[in-house]
Amino acid sequence: MKLKMMYSFLNSDINTIEKKLEETIQADSLLLKRASLHTLQAGGKRIRPVFVLLAGKFGRYDINVMKNVAVALELIHMASLVHDDVIDDADLRRGQPTVKAKWDNKTAMYTGDFIFALSLELMSEINKPLAHKILANTIVEVTVGEIQQIKDKYRFNQNLRDYLRRIKRKTALLISASCQLGAIAANVEESIHKKLYLFGYYVGMAFQITDDILDFTSSEEELGKPAGSDLLQGNITAPALYAMENETIRLEIEKVHQDMEPAQIQNIITLIKESSAIDRSIALSDMYLDKALAVLEELPANKAKKTLRDIAKFIGRRKY
Amino acid sequence: MKLKMMYSFLNSDINTIEKKLEETIQADSLLLKRASLHTLQAGGKRIRPVFVLLAGKFGRYDINVMKNVAVALELIHMASLVHDDVIDDADLRRGQPTVKAKWDNKTAMYTGDFIFALSLELMSEINKPLAHKILANTIVEVTVGEIQQIKDKYRFNQNLRDYLRRIKRKTALLISASCQLGAIAANVEESIHKKLYLFGYYVGMAFQITDDILDFTSSEEELGKPAGSDLLQGNITAPALYAMENETIRLEIEKVHQDMEPAQIQNIITLIKESSAIDRSIALSDMYLDKALAVLEELPANKAKKTLRDIAKFIGRRKY
Repeated sequence: MKLKMMYSFLNSDINTIEKKLEETIQADSLLLKRASLHTLQAGGKRIRPVFVLLAGKFGRYDINVMKNVAVALELIHMASLVHDDVIDDADLRRGQPTVKAKWDNKTAMYTGDFIFALSLELMSEINKPLAHKILANTIVEVTVGEIQQIKDKYRFNQNLRDYLRRIKRKTALLISASCQLGAIAANVEESIHKKLYLFGYYVGMAFQITDDILDFTSSEEELGKPAGSDLLQGNITAPALYAMENETIRLEIEKVHQDMEPAQIQNIITLIKESSAIDRSIALSDMYLDKALAVLEELPANKAKKTLRDIAKFIGRRKY
Repeated sequence: MKLKMMYSFLNSDINTIEKKLEETIQADSLLLKRASLHTLQAGGKRIRPVFVLLAGKFGRYDINVMKNVAVALELIHMASLVHDDVIDDADLRRGQPTVKAKWDNKTAMYTGDFIFALSLELMSEINKPLAHKILANTIVEVTVGEIQQIKDKYRFNQNLRDYLRRIKRKTALLISASCQLGAIAANVEESIHKKLYLFGYYVGMAFQITDDILDFTSSEEELGKPAGSDLLQGNITAPALYAMENETIRLEIEKVHQDMEPAQIQNIITLIKESSAIDRSIALSDMYLDKALAVLEELPANKAKKTLRDIAKFIGRRKY
C-alpha cells in the first residue's frame, strides 16, 4: 500500500495544508518567494503535517486550528533542510537543485531564516503556553544537533550512542513534537499527548535509521542523489558504525574523505553491504518501530490510531 | 552624561541580565559555546534589554519575568548580527573579529540559529499570546528586511523611502518590540504599550540614521571598522542618498564597488561630508527623535519616562 493511501480520509485537509503552505510563503521579495517556493515544490512526504493531523484526531479536531500547527511544523522542517544543505554543501535534494546550489549560501541562509520566521508566526496563533515551550525546546535541540553533526563529520571514533543522539535531534524530536503539538492543539489530555510524543520519537528514530540504510542500499535514481552520499560527506551512520566493528572494513572507512574517487567509495559501500551491518541496522530500526507500536497500543482505539500504525510500519520498513 | 549613567538605578537588574545572558548560551558543544560567548563578549550597548526593563516600569515590574524578555530580545539582536556578518562578509564588528571571520560562514549560520533558538526558549516562559504574536511578526519583518538589504546593495537608483523601509525592518522594529513586549510582560494596559511601541519605533529610526551618519563622520578608531564601510559594501544610507541629489556626486558614488581603492572611497566620503548630506541626515534623525519625544509626553510621569527621554536624546544625537 502506498503511503498516501493510508491517510486518504485526510485528503481534503491535506489539500488545505498544501494551499496554506503556498499562501504562507508569499513574500514581497521576489527572490525570497522564488527560493521558498522552490523548496516547497521540491516536495517531500509532508509526514509532519500528517502526524499533526492524526494526533489531533485524538481530541477536538478543528482544521482551522490544526492547519496552523501542521504548516508550522512542515516549515520548520523545510527551513532546517535549507540550512542543512549549506552545511553539507549539498547540490541536490530529492533530485532537485538545492537553494544554495540554485542561488548561493547566503540566499539559502536567509531563505531558511524567513521560512522559519513564518512558522513562528503561524504557531503564535495557538494560544497554548505548553505548545510554545515544547516547540522552543525542540528547536534548540534541533539546532544543537545540527552543529553536533558538523563536529562529528569524518570523526571515525564515534560510537552508536553519538549517532543515536544525533538522529534524535536531527529527526526524531521534530516528529515527536508534531505528534504532541497536534494533540495539544486539539486539547488532548496530558497522558495521551505524552504517549503521542513517545510514539513520534520512536517512529522518528526508526525513520531516520531506515533513511540511513537506504543511503547505502538504494540506487541513485531512487535517492535523487548518489548512493553513499552520507558517508562521502563524513556523515557516519548506523551501517558504517556496525561495519567498522570489523577491523579490515574500519581501515577502509577511515580513508574516506570528501574528494574520494567514486570507484573507491563504491568499493567501501560494497564492503558495508556485504557485511552484517545492513541487517543489524534494520534490527535497530525494528527495535524502535516495535517500541512505537507498543506505545500506540496504549492509546484509545480510533481510525487515527490504525493509520498511525500503518504509517509507522511503512516508514520504518520502506524500501525507498 | 554617559549612556550607562542614565539608567544607573537599573544597575542591579542589568547585572542580572548580563548573568542570565551568559548562563543561557551555555551549550554542550564547545564550538557553539565559544562562538556564542565570543558574540556575547563583543559587547554592544544592551540597549534592547534596557528598553525592555524601562517599559516594564510602567506596569507590574517583576525582574524574574522581565529578565526572560530582556535576554530574549538581546539574543535575537545578537543572532541577527551573526547572520548579517555572513551576508556583509564582515570581518570586524566593534573592533572584534566576527564569528564568520574567526570560524567560518557555516559556523556563523548555526551559531545564529542556536542563539535565536535560545531566545525562543526564554520567550516561551511568557504566557501572553499577544507577546508571541508581536514577536513572531517582528521576526518575519526583520528577516524580510535582511534579504531586502542584499537586494538593495549597490542599487544606486533607490530612494529615501526604500532606505526608511529597510532601516525600519533592520533596526526600528526590534526596538519597538523591546518596548512593547517589556510593557506587555508587566501587564501594562493596551493604550500605554501601543505608545511605547511607537516611541521605540521612532527612537529606532533616529538611532539607525545616526549610526549611518557616524559611518561617514567617525574615525576608524571610534567605529572599530574603517569609515565609509557601509558605502563600500553597497549599503546606500541617508547621507549617500541625499548627496546623490547632486549630479556630480551621484556619478562618483555610482562608481563604488567592493574592491575600490581606499583612496578613491576616501575621496567620495569627503565629497559627501562637504555636501549638505550630513546636515540633512541629522535633520531626518531629529525629526524621528522629536516624534519619539512627543509620544513619550503622552505617557504617565515616572522615573522610567525621564530615563527614556534621556536615552532617546542620547542615542539620536550621539557622536560615537
